[in-house]
Amino acid sequence: MTNPVLVEVLRGAIIESAHRGAIAVFDADGKPVWEIGDTARPVFPRSAVKAIQALPLVESGAADAFGFGNRELALACASHSGEPAHVELARSMLAKAGLDETALECGAHWPSSHDATLALARAGGSPNALHNNCSGKHSGFLCTCVHVGVAHKGYVKAGHAEQEMVRDAMQAVTGAAHGADERATDGCSIPTYAVPLRSFALGFARMVTTTGFGPERAKAAKRLLSACMAEPFFVAGTGRADVALMQAAPGRIFVKGGAEGVYCAALPELGLGIALKCDDGAGRAAESMVAAVIAKLLHADEILAARLLELANAPIESRIGAKVGALMPTAALS
Amino acid sequence: MTNPVLVEVLRGAIIESAHRGAIAVFDADGKPVWEIGDTARPVFPRSAVKAIQALPLVESGAADAFGFGNRELALACASHSGEPAHVELARSMLAKAGLDETALECGAHWPSSHDATLALARAGGSPNALHNNCSGKHSGFLCTCVHVGVAHKGYVKAGHAEQEMVRDAMQAVTGAAHGADERATDGCSIPTYAVPLRSFALGFARMVTTTGFGPERAKAAKRLLSACMAEPFFVAGTGRADVALMQAAPGRIFVKGGAEGVYCAALPELGLGIALKCDDGAGRAAESMVAAVIAKLLHADEILAARLLELANAPIESRIGAKVGALMPTAALS
Repeated sequence: MTNPVLVEVLRGAIIESAHRGAIAVFDADGKPVWEIGDTARPVFPRSAVKAIQALPLVESGAADAFGFGNRELALACASHSGEPAHVELARSMLAKAGLDETALECGAHWPSSHDATLALARAGGSPNALHNNCSGKHSGFLCTCVHVGVAHKGYVKAGHAEQEMVRDAMQAVTGAAHGADERATDGCSIPTYAVPLRSFALGFARMVTTTGFGPERAKAAKRLLSACMAEPFFVAGTGRADVALMQAAPGRIFVKGGAEGVYCAALPELGLGIALKCDDGAGRAAESMVAAVIAKLLHADEILAARLLELANAPIESRIGAKVGALMPTAALS
Repeated sequence: MTNPVLVEVLRGAIIESAHRGAIAVFDADGKPVWEIGDTARPVFPRSAVKAIQALPLVESGAADAFGFGNRELALACASHSGEPAHVELARSMLAKAGLDETALECGAHWPSSHDATLALARAGGSPNALHNNCSGKHSGFLCTCVHVGVAHKGYVKAGHAEQEMVRDAMQAVTGAAHGADERATDGCSIPTYAVPLRSFALGFARMVTTTGFGPERAKAAKRLLSACMAEPFFVAGTGRADVALMQAAPGRIFVKGGAEGVYCAALPELGLGIALKCDDGAGRAAESMVAAVIAKLLHADEILAARLLELANAPIESRIGAKVGALMPTAALS
């Protein structure tokens, strides 16, 4: 099955590029509310499921033992931009567990924030693993290891106790088997599993309603999503789509993007989970898609829907800042 | 018509993302040699046609008047990375015409080379229009204006004498009408025209064979393509696909990428022109496609074909540099 075009990229009045994709919107009972394209096709969720991957950090008691509040929990669910506030918070999380950045196994890269990269270079610095966009998640993994008393070395590998906890949470929440046949390696070296797109929509409907969860998991899921919605900057960074989307309606929209054009989202007031994948992996299109889908689902709030559609129709600018085109969600999304 | 998937992106053994596209290979008599997908659909060629856009620089006599050699002509056809050698060469081209960077109307941006950006920031600098990846093309435009004696102000605008010369060259070489209905604005503020993809394949077959060209145009086309093949670094920059492709077989492969997943190419020994567009605009996929197409067309040279397929199957790496996946051209390209 060929997924439909969901976002077109216009230059002037002409379509220059087009992005196909699939979208699943589910309720917590497993009922599909809206599906576009092949939602049964397995996709790697990448960073879009970090809130589920952070469940063991809270459920194990590690988050409480180290005194983590909304910001730390948001950072544990983040693909942050490597801005100073992100780096310092990850450092402080590790310090509370008696660790430093040398324990991180995610690898180093320059901040995804261009401004943060420039500032670091101007100061004569160079990046370490704390600047990695996944350093909050990895700090959460390490804190969990320390709290439950397992050796943290190799914590990124399939089979390590930490990744087994993460996999158990992913399987339980999404209802999809995460076996070796579905497994590959994420950019930050942890396992990532390709399972049907719709499983993630169901998973986030469960996360936001806690349907079927025991009391500990229900509390943890609520805390993590609430933390992300309360501190969106720590989930992403300055100027990022995830921040703009969550700030558009504080407490009413949870979103988290992942590499290769994935988004997961949840809408508390409707009890719905959303998962989408742009076929070609483009982040710009995935951002437009998730904004358009949420605008449609929350259309009753006209002011909010208009703001979300503005985000969905992001401008394309020339190097002198003139608007020369725009992204445009197709009729399939309206 | 839905274009076929031409490149898949694997993570482990699983297809994570996929890129569709169309490809046209033509000879100079207008005969299609190989076509995939909808090659009649209009596409903006963006920077992939800079060698055609540079014809007036040579044909007007400006290039000779200012003593431009291969490097300057390559830079006039370039989307360079803003490395110091690119910036200094653009500056010297302008100086020969009595101008400096304040005449450039392309806008400024940080070098597309990450290393060049870091070096500039570490030195306390900031970018000007010379760092714009199009500054060589714009310097060529400005030198042409000065040489032919037209006021250069507004040289980026449709209707200015310079853009009329460029449009005339584009129309004559591609055989496609470039009217106001086809026009939009490129990232560097000049007009760009969406015409059928196959026109660009025909255009580059003509550029490389000079079929149907008068003696001045024939000489100019030969000089420009030869200059790019002789000095590929000045067409792109360190580590770039265009450089790797042209260096793989010096003098036998001309390629030039453009924004939004476009490539134009020409193979002198076969007298063929190639044009392709990745539907979704992804550069990574367009690079893989052009390498795979050329590998197929030059398959008789097995060592070269193997090198090109290596470039077509670029690895995907984790942040610690482990290979976790790869791009893979599909059967449609083999």
